[in-house]
Amino acid sequence: MASTSPESAAATETDGSIQIRRLELADHERGFVSLLSQLSSCPDLTASEFAARFAELAAHGDDHVILVAEDPSAQERRILATGCLFVERKFLRGGGKVGHVEDVVVDATARGKGLGLRIVRRVVEIAREAGCYKVILDCTPELRAYYAKCGFVEKGVQMAVYF
Amino acid sequence: MASTSPESAAATETDGSIQIRRLELADHERGFVSLLSQLSSCPDLTASEFAARFAELAAHGDDHVILVAEDPSAQERRILATGCLFVERKFLRGGGKVGHVEDVVVDATARGKGLGLRIVRRVVEIAREAGCYKVILDCTPELRAYYAKCGFVEKGVQMAVYF
Repeated sequence: MASTSPESAAATETDGSIQIRRLELADHERGFVSLLSQLSSCPDLTASEFAARFAELAAHGDDHVILVAEDPSAQERRILATGCLFVERKFLRGGGKVGHVEDVVVDATARGKGLGLRIVRRVVEIAREAGCYKVILDCTPELRAYYAKCGFVEKGVQMAVYF
Repeated sequence: MASTSPESAAATETDGSIQIRRLELADHERGFVSLLSQLSSCPDLTASEFAARFAELAAHGDDHVILVAEDPSAQERRILATGCLFVERKFLRGGGKVGHVEDVVVDATARGKGLGLRIVRRVVEIAREAGCYKVILDCTPELRAYYAKCGFVEKGVQMAVYF
């Protein structure tokens, strides 16, 4: 099991037939990149490009966690949903840590089953266990109510410069 | 000069008497933590706590840059402003990178001199040079116009869970 942090099994959770677990290298073959393309422009990566990025992120250990949802009993083990947490270490708040949630997406064929909420709630729990004093994310205004179901409240505006 | 990445001199910029440069270990003695306390709860760190966090962040090299503003000719070399950039590596966008701007603050005695804008513009330039496809930040609605001066446009809402 080539997860980003094999020693941390705490991310794995099974509810019904769908399992939430950490990203594995083999998920490149299970449509992980194609799933992300439902969120943003996402040209496929070659196996070696995927492996290189996977290794870069794995080097962060538990400071960078990508969760995926899959049905291990399905004939074709496609990734059905994903969400990412990375931990930022700061000088303020007594050397505090902030969890950033990124790249949450549920496959169009798997929506309405609560998979996204399961992933986000697990991500929040991981951030709490890691000692973060808060966990934050940016989303469109339409998703306020969705994230409110996981305990998020609106705090500010997101600004961006695109190059 | 113990900067977070001594080999990268590109962050240093001088305009008038105020210099923008990367954070140094010695900035603990120059009021860096006390400056952050104008932004958020920020109990002081001991010298060894500060050095430990400094080393953790320096390990990220150019993926984590803290800029500070100071007047090197001043008798007391206090840090007058700061801003942080960290680079997040993704699988989407062909293995793209996003710059996150955090913890921008100008000392109450040094406001109105454009120091914050100089730091944010430099941070945006570093993100561009690093190959990021965008740079993002979260702020209060009142600061929209401030960040618009650096080319930022509103993209979404920030949501948070506090523990």
